[in-house]
Amino acid sequence: MNQQNIYKSGQPIQVEHIFQGKKQQIRVIESDNKMVEQTIILLSDGGISAVTLEAVGVRAGYSRGLVSRHYGSKDGLFIRVFKYLEDWIEANCSHATQNIQGLDAINAFILDISNNINLHAEKYRAYFCLWFYGLESKGELNQYLMHVRNLREQKHLKWLKQAQKLKQLSRKSDLSMLADFVMTSIIGLIHKWMFDMGFNIELRLKQLVNIQLRTMFSNSHLFYSVNYWGE
Amino acid sequence: MNQQNIYKSGQPIQVEHIFQGKKQQIRVIESDNKMVEQTIILLSDGGISAVTLEAVGVRAGYSRGLVSRHYGSKDGLFIRVFKYLEDWIEANCSHATQNIQGLDAINAFILDISNNINLHAEKYRAYFCLWFYGLESKGELNQYLMHVRNLREQKHLKWLKQAQKLKQLSRKSDLSMLADFVMTSIIGLIHKWMFDMGFNIELRLKQLVNIQLRTMFSNSHLFYSVNYWGE
Repeated sequence: MNQQNIYKSGQPIQVEHIFQGKKQQIRVIESDNKMVEQTIILLSDGGISAVTLEAVGVRAGYSRGLVSRHYGSKDGLFIRVFKYLEDWIEANCSHATQNIQGLDAINAFILDISNNINLHAEKYRAYFCLWFYGLESKGELNQYLMHVRNLREQKHLKWLKQAQKLKQLSRKSDLSMLADFVMTSIIGLIHKWMFDMGFNIELRLKQLVNIQLRTMFSNSHLFYSVNYWGE
Repeated sequence: MNQQNIYKSGQPIQVEHIFQGKKQQIRVIESDNKMVEQTIILLSDGGISAVTLEAVGVRAGYSRGLVSRHYGSKDGLFIRVFKYLEDWIEANCSHATQNIQGLDAINAFILDISNNINLHAEKYRAYFCLWFYGLESKGELNQYLMHVRNLREQKHLKWLKQAQKLKQLSRKSDLSMLADFVMTSIIGLIHKWMFDMGFNIELRLKQLVNIQLRTMFSNSHLFYSVNYWGE
């Protein structure tokens, strides 16, 4: 036990004070949850421009001032909401790919999005709204997004390396090219879905796994790096 | 000759007036060109948020008022610039795919982007900046963008139908699925390039044509529509 702990434990415990502190903490968590929830609805329905600190406050039953004290600014709110959604998506992904390796993990990752995207369309729409907006924005949201994107890329490369070890992919194949094609295919399909509400994203993601990527992976010996393309 | 023409040709011709009108017209075209040019630079360097009517005016050597009179608003300016860039890209595309049919046209279309994207990085960056922003925006820009996207989709479907007739693709293959995979692959790669300046988009687009799409098209019998995916 270090000095600080001894000192702290030496203080008289004020149960009432702790209780009040806890109640306060619970209220903060509750109001944060409500505001995050309402921001997700606003983003999903009307995009970035529909979100104002005031609109979030009104919908969650708080003043603009409270929203502003919580998150500082609209960008602060966006970072909070993106982190919330990223945690949620990452938890889904980890669950779906648990104890799975190689190409099966990539397939499970995409099929999990396919299975969930219509059930949780609001969350996915809000997430990718912030994703595409983050491209444009400067500062903290952009940095966090780049960080998340890099982690996702590392994960895909890890799965592809496992696949190579498991002889699911040719030794010749260029893993960073394959990772780019897998990830940009997903982002491209989702971008189309954001535009076009009638687009059957669920079906296309299943076809991506069961047709497109299957064809790609079973021809992985063709996916090797060439820098010169003769005519 | 109808009534109106007779009436018009009956007016005394004021040469001086016509000359002044032409000079005025040339000045309008010149200032428009300058402002479009400067908007492209601003978009390419700093994205949507870098563009203000004032910044465009200062860079082009005009007042904010003149920019505002020209385009009405920032959105009006964006539509003008998008149309300008769309015409430019469409002209490139038409040139590249002239007298070519089927899969060769799709390949030529993508290789043309690959060959030009680094040479004209500013224009492509500005174009796709507006493209991704248009997703988010409401109103006229969004509508115009959807219109352009539909035309592009129709063009891809036309090429794929030609390919089927030319027996480059299996009769079984689902052309709208193939069109989605081609177009979303391009958009996905370009989206990554917008994020990541070091991304070798030129190489990846060439690999898209010479490896990814070649594999896809030569396995086109696998790309048929299935709505049920058994486990």
